[in-house]
Amino acid sequence: MQDDTHANGTTNGRFASLTPLLQPRSVAVVGASADATRIGGRPVSYMLRGEFQGRVMPVNPKRSEIQGLPAYASIDDLPEAPDASVVAVPAAQVVDTVDALGRRGGRSAIIFSSGFSEVGAQGEALQQQLLVTARRHGMRLLGPNTAGAFNSTIGFFGSFMSGLERGFPLPGRIGIASQSGAYGAHLLGLARARGLGTPICAATGNECDVTLGEAIGWMVENPDIDVVMAYAEAVRDVESFTAALEAAHAARKPVILQKVGRSALGQKAALSHTAALAGDDRVFDAMLADYAVIRVESSAELLDVAYTATRRIYPANNSLGMLTISGGAGIIVSDLAEQLDVPMPPMPEPAQADLKTAVPFCSPINPVDCTAQVLNDLTLAGTFGERMVSDGGYASVLAFFSQAGTVPSVAPKLCAELKKVKDAHPDRLFVMSLIGEPEQNQPYEEAGFVLMEDPTDAVKVIKAMGQLGDAFARPLPQREAVPPVTLPEATPGEAEAKQLLAAHGIPAVPEKVLGSAGEAAAYAEQIGFPVVMKIASADIVHKSEIGGVLLNVADADSVREGFQTLLDNAERHAPEAKLDGVLVARQIVGGVECFMGIQRDPQFGPVAVFGLGGIFVEVLKDVVFQRCPFDREEARRLILSIKGAPLLQGARGRAPVDLDALSAMLANLSRFAVGAGERLDSIDINPVFAMPEGQGAFAADALIQLKTDQLKTDQLNEQK
Amino acid sequence: MQDDTHANGTTNGRFASLTPLLQPRSVAVVGASADATRIGGRPVSYMLRGEFQGRVMPVNPKRSEIQGLPAYASIDDLPEAPDASVVAVPAAQVVDTVDALGRRGGRSAIIFSSGFSEVGAQGEALQQQLLVTARRHGMRLLGPNTAGAFNSTIGFFGSFMSGLERGFPLPGRIGIASQSGAYGAHLLGLARARGLGTPICAATGNECDVTLGEAIGWMVENPDIDVVMAYAEAVRDVESFTAALEAAHAARKPVILQKVGRSALGQKAALSHTAALAGDDRVFDAMLADYAVIRVESSAELLDVAYTATRRIYPANNSLGMLTISGGAGIIVSDLAEQLDVPMPPMPEPAQADLKTAVPFCSPINPVDCTAQVLNDLTLAGTFGERMVSDGGYASVLAFFSQAGTVPSVAPKLCAELKKVKDAHPDRLFVMSLIGEPEQNQPYEEAGFVLMEDPTDAVKVIKAMGQLGDAFARPLPQREAVPPVTLPEATPGEAEAKQLLAAHGIPAVPEKVLGSAGEAAAYAEQIGFPVVMKIASADIVHKSEIGGVLLNVADADSVREGFQTLLDNAERHAPEAKLDGVLVARQIVGGVECFMGIQRDPQFGPVAVFGLGGIFVEVLKDVVFQRCPFDREEARRLILSIKGAPLLQGARGRAPVDLDALSAMLANLSRFAVGAGERLDSIDINPVFAMPEGQGAFAADALIQLKTDQLKTDQLNEQK
Repeated sequence: MQDDTHANGTTNGRFASLTPLLQPRSVAVVGASADATRIGGRPVSYMLRGEFQGRVMPVNPKRSEIQGLPAYASIDDLPEAPDASVVAVPAAQVVDTVDALGRRGGRSAIIFSSGFSEVGAQGEALQQQLLVTARRHGMRLLGPNTAGAFNSTIGFFGSFMSGLERGFPLPGRIGIASQSGAYGAHLLGLARARGLGTPICAATGNECDVTLGEAIGWMVENPDIDVVMAYAEAVRDVESFTAALEAAHAARKPVILQKVGRSALGQKAALSHTAALAGDDRVFDAMLADYAVIRVESSAELLDVAYTATRRIYPANNSLGMLTISGGAGIIVSDLAEQLDVPMPPMPEPAQADLKTAVPFCSPINPVDCTAQVLNDLTLAGTFGERMVSDGGYASVLAFFSQAGTVPSVAPKLCAELKKVKDAHPDRLFVMSLIGEPEQNQPYEEAGFVLMEDPTDAVKVIKAMGQLGDAFARPLPQREAVPPVTLPEATPGEAEAKQLLAAHGIPAVPEKVLGSAGEAAAYAEQIGFPVVMKIASADIVHKSEIGGVLLNVADADSVREGFQTLLDNAERHAPEAKLDGVLVARQIVGGVECFMGIQRDPQFGPVAVFGLGGIFVEVLKDVVFQRCPFDREEARRLILSIKGAPLLQGARGRAPVDLDALSAMLANLSRFAVGAGERLDSIDINPVFAMPEGQGAFAADALIQLKTDQLKTDQLNEQK
Repeated sequence: MQDDTHANGTTNGRFASLTPLLQPRSVAVVGASADATRIGGRPVSYMLRGEFQGRVMPVNPKRSEIQGLPAYASIDDLPEAPDASVVAVPAAQVVDTVDALGRRGGRSAIIFSSGFSEVGAQGEALQQQLLVTARRHGMRLLGPNTAGAFNSTIGFFGSFMSGLERGFPLPGRIGIASQSGAYGAHLLGLARARGLGTPICAATGNECDVTLGEAIGWMVENPDIDVVMAYAEAVRDVESFTAALEAAHAARKPVILQKVGRSALGQKAALSHTAALAGDDRVFDAMLADYAVIRVESSAELLDVAYTATRRIYPANNSLGMLTISGGAGIIVSDLAEQLDVPMPPMPEPAQADLKTAVPFCSPINPVDCTAQVLNDLTLAGTFGERMVSDGGYASVLAFFSQAGTVPSVAPKLCAELKKVKDAHPDRLFVMSLIGEPEQNQPYEEAGFVLMEDPTDAVKVIKAMGQLGDAFARPLPQREAVPPVTLPEATPGEAEAKQLLAAHGIPAVPEKVLGSAGEAAAYAEQIGFPVVMKIASADIVHKSEIGGVLLNVADADSVREGFQTLLDNAERHAPEAKLDGVLVARQIVGGVECFMGIQRDPQFGPVAVFGLGGIFVEVLKDVVFQRCPFDREEARRLILSIKGAPLLQGARGRAPVDLDALSAMLANLSRFAVGAGERLDSIDINPVFAMPEGQGAFAADALIQLKTDQLKTDQLNEQK
């Protein structure tokens, strides 16, 4: 066996098992081709061109030499056990190949071959067999159906990406983890075109073993990488994904994520079929909120944010000060900052007065419009910038100089003046909106400014850096252990469900069947007035028709009196009915109707849902989702994040509801769902009455669905 | 006087009066400087460098020569009357300068000088004086406080934009009209950096005379321009702006507009202060909907859309077919297309089968994933493309080839194959998502493809071209003449307001005071049952307490009977009351509560507002706005565009409402508002009952506010 000492610290991390795969010291290429343009030829050619620091060992039974390297007739003939092996053989031969590699001491393999889970059940079975084989040998697998991985810091190219023919990645500190090889290559190409270095890249393909999360995690633990760009179509393994995000948080390395499939999954999750919430995108978004992740919508945004993040300045409690020579650009930025919730507080009045003295026609509020006047005396740019940082206190400064900032008569002096301010305040983020040729921009780049042509994009990256700063400053939520919940054998009825939930802090509308007027009065005093009273008898179906229901019973005397009235009425109109007593229930007055529930997501497990009743859910789809469990604070945040939240906070002359009680109820439900484990399929509590402040929140109806009942439900649906 | 014959057709258009300004044959520069870097020196220097086709005449009392040109001591000394004059003198001298130019036969002037309306009341007065002076001489003015204009097709540079120092605009067919000189220059810089030609540009500054609309209009009428990029902070003159958009529509030339100030104005327009709807951005947006205008949010988007528009392919009824070598890119595009409502219908089944035969592992639905297989046989790209257009029928095709499309072994053949398809279908829009160096992209550019690095941006421009196509295909709405409405002398009371509105097709809940049981029964039959009946007497205040109100009166016999009952009750309980008869009113059952109204916008005049009652307006701010007048079809579109629209269409088990009646009511209100003219300040009809289908829509309360009453209202508010 080989020793495990590698040059970097990755080996000791949580994701160290990927080191042989992504930082190998020796590489076998099985199915190596002498033709450098073929899939089996490219890795050899790339590694030769990239001057791979380890040994490249082509395996090809028909040739003794491949692209100038000695080739080996079989895996058994390999002169040393390879850290990584590239496998470029037909699908049918892959399992045997991996088995042979395992026997030879191979530690990992990259499977280019297609014809596995992406082609249906047979391929899925073959893929399973492949995984079992690899596991038996303790090997890690990338793919199958992957374009591979590279690590240009050591000249390793276990990839057939044709983009590498155009040129190798530039040196830099951005990693790429992508579920799509073609899109990963697209990102590589965009990064190169923009001068951004992406030395390490892994495309995870079918993910039979190594997941996207693990690839991200390994890069995050790698000292050569500061920022990870990730592309995901579906997060197949939530555990490794969240572990990677935890590692990223710990290392203060942001993950910039483009996750696609928003729309299609959104459709699936239509509210009319809550059971089909599979991998709901909103749950995914809610989950990301805890971590230092920026989710983007386009590759351009992905690159903008990753580029900015390489400066490693993440201002918590972000605020934006804009220095501009154009009032128009100032308005554009103000518009967008307001839309994106990036605060732009004004400069302090005394500083404004000073700047007015320096440049009489300037507008020194914020945006600080210094006018083109500063171009005549560039020390003014420094003065303005310094006052903005030291007096305005902005965490981020955006300076709009457009092409005026890159003309030869302006650029060196402007850059020097602003660099002075920047260097004096290394914790602030300085973004310059400039238009220039690459060589004109270079001095600003070298001085450490972030450069964005478009002021709109500048605001977006400033917002993202602030979000990262806040995320890094916030400790990750501790997922406290949830005590187990004992579920009944079969799906419980409404009463049993409500009892079970109430025992776990999800109270129902208080109600009790009582046998005497005195007990009824005492209970009513305990739960609070007014109360509803009903004759309790299985034999009396239409209770109100025989005078068996009393509403608005307001005090203890009336309860005692009512008790007798109900018995009398029953006696008179249903003399043969067997009476259980009288049901006393809290009468709901002035509450707001809500609903909450639990659905099981195939990826995220139990997911809590909350919304207001009526049109809010049916017409406006105004509901929120969160992965369980979560605490009261998170429950409160969720509740207040719905559009209809003002209705809970006293809009339209209503009393504000008991948010403490409602939040506790939702948080308890989320813990109940986790404690109940796999057998719990769904919970539907509808309506929930959120009562005025201090008066609690109550479930008025509850349905708990267990998994064993699923068949029954399906049969019922079929019968409909 | 000079003759008016110019080289182009602009002279005959609606905006011909700007031709001397933007296409001059002679230019005076008043305040010309010998220093080519000074504001008064740049226009001379630029025109020399740009080889202006006419005569440049510097005016400077201290020099006989400026930058090698003969200079004139005064305006009176000018050898010919200048078409355009650049005025670069202090504010205090501007009026006299323009007067002198007018006397010398000058036809237009560009006023660089600051110190006018932008500096307060005194400057405003000076600006007014300037305008009066120019009007007296029949001169058009650009500015004051403008960075000027240029027209590089003739080498005219009446501008001090420093960006022109870096380089002149490239040849091309895009015009720039901007209210901000600095932002206009920024756009010029971005366009140059991207290889886009913007030969004509006007910055309108304070707009004392020439408006942004006129600048757009002149460019639209100019045969050298196909597309106009416009930047607006506030549309000061709606008439010239809409006239320009009409001209643009007629000429099939799109206007791409970045209008800023969204947020601040949005705040002003908060629903709690509907009177303060000043220049509301939503009204502006609603107004644009009629025209061939694309409103963008950033300069990057502005350039993307303008660039694409230069291909002049505007597919109406747009649909998107995507050809891709990456499944991932396909998902990204599908997501965004769904979000942006760009249809992506699937390929017809037989064509799918054929493509499956050609490339077994392809996914031929749409996106059509042809896989990297096509790179081995590029004729397949042509086959796929052709089938997509001829069988799939897509109006727009997006082909994602990323950097694979620009590698030397692929590019020439791929370009040729796809060009064949393109040339066979010149009405289709072909967008390629490629990554390459400019020289690698060049052949695709020359072949007429639209090139976008990012597939996300590609979808956005494809959507925009479809919107333009639809707008060009649609005739502009004919603003029919609205008959005048005679308003009362003073603000009418509720009854009078309802009567007035009812006379113009905005019906109130039908009600009438009747003197006999027979008349009452006949009226009730006419308006429909059930009806409400009330004793009509000014002397009886609390009608229900004396049995003076009957609800749910269901048929004619009951009306007759009720009539007598009401008289009897009045006789008994209020024998001294003077009776007017009995009021019979339609009883509202099962309607949906809405509101509609009119507000006066300082820019757009009367604006109609519509929304649902209750939480929809108070909590969700779910309202729509439109400039008046509009027809029933537009009214219906507006009504159905609110989020709560499902409630009008039968959501939650309700009956669908009478949309025909509701739309007619709103359209009639919009006509009423225009017919009523300037004296009308606002109308508030709240609630409006939208009844079930076939049963109409009725105003239950109405308030008409006239302008003369404003003082009274203000006083009332102060007293509060």
